[in-house]
Amino acid sequence: MLKPGTKLLAVDPSLVASGFSVLQVGDRSTISMLECSYLPLSSSKTVGDRVALFHDFFANKLHQWQITDLALETPFLGKNAQNFLKLGYLRGVLLLLAAKGQLPVHEFTPTQVKQAVTGTGGASKEQVAHMILKLFPRMVKPEKHDVTDAVAVALCALWHQKRLV
Amino acid sequence: MLKPGTKLLAVDPSLVASGFSVLQVGDRSTISMLECSYLPLSSSKTVGDRVALFHDFFANKLHQWQITDLALETPFLGKNAQNFLKLGYLRGVLLLLAAKGQLPVHEFTPTQVKQAVTGTGGASKEQVAHMILKLFPRMVKPEKHDVTDAVAVALCALWHQKRLV
Repeated sequence: MLKPGTKLLAVDPSLVASGFSVLQVGDRSTISMLECSYLPLSSSKTVGDRVALFHDFFANKLHQWQITDLALETPFLGKNAQNFLKLGYLRGVLLLLAAKGQLPVHEFTPTQVKQAVTGTGGASKEQVAHMILKLFPRMVKPEKHDVTDAVAVALCALWHQKRLV
Repeated sequence: MLKPGTKLLAVDPSLVASGFSVLQVGDRSTISMLECSYLPLSSSKTVGDRVALFHDFFANKLHQWQITDLALETPFLGKNAQNFLKLGYLRGVLLLLAAKGQLPVHEFTPTQVKQAVTGTGGASKEQVAHMILKLFPRMVKPEKHDVTDAVAVALCALWHQKRLV
């Protein structure tokens, strides 16, 4: 059974647009969505300033929703090593916030997330978005896949927790 | 001329042992060392806890010495992509602290640092350590190259500033 009262924040960090979602476990293991959106960061700002804005935004989200758990997707090195390093900056900030708040961090690979949400580890971002919109019919189709990706990570973390208990 | 009153912190970040040094520019462009050491982080702690300890340690250093500038070395992807990502966590924390304190961040490649300190961009860590100990004769030879590396980054940043003015 999912632990009632769990409020999980999942973040898909990026120096351009970070998708995030907040899911809540209610009585009888119901899962409801409290928020899903993204944080845009202007490329006219320095990387340091964007890291600081990202920190303040998610510090505020943790406080606003009284978050109990954090979920992230394991990143893999792509073509650009410097972008991978910059992704590390944002993950470092999230790990810092989680450690300060003593929140458990749940991490899943992209394959685990796609498998959990669509039933196949090789699903496309469109398939993930399609399933998320089916599972949350009142959700407005977001402009960016970053948002549906973040919801998928959050759902994967909650369902995984369910299987473990 | 170097700006008198500049207090520069250079950090060579690592989840195992982070070398750091604090150099101060005095009157007549003299450079003196206020501190050089390293922060050990136990591998028995979680990565998140180590990131938080790293944050608190360097937040305290910035305050203790009233640091005006931060210097870092550009990292390059080695054999282990996940270690590169973790290095990003610590750089993210330093960029966050610099942005919060409105401190300029100076960054140099390993080649620039070695060139500045030894005259050759292909110098070994031993050659760098040798030169640093010649330049600061009262400095006790540290156990780790992380410390002399951090002093070299700091010196490179100050001398670079000198050339620009």
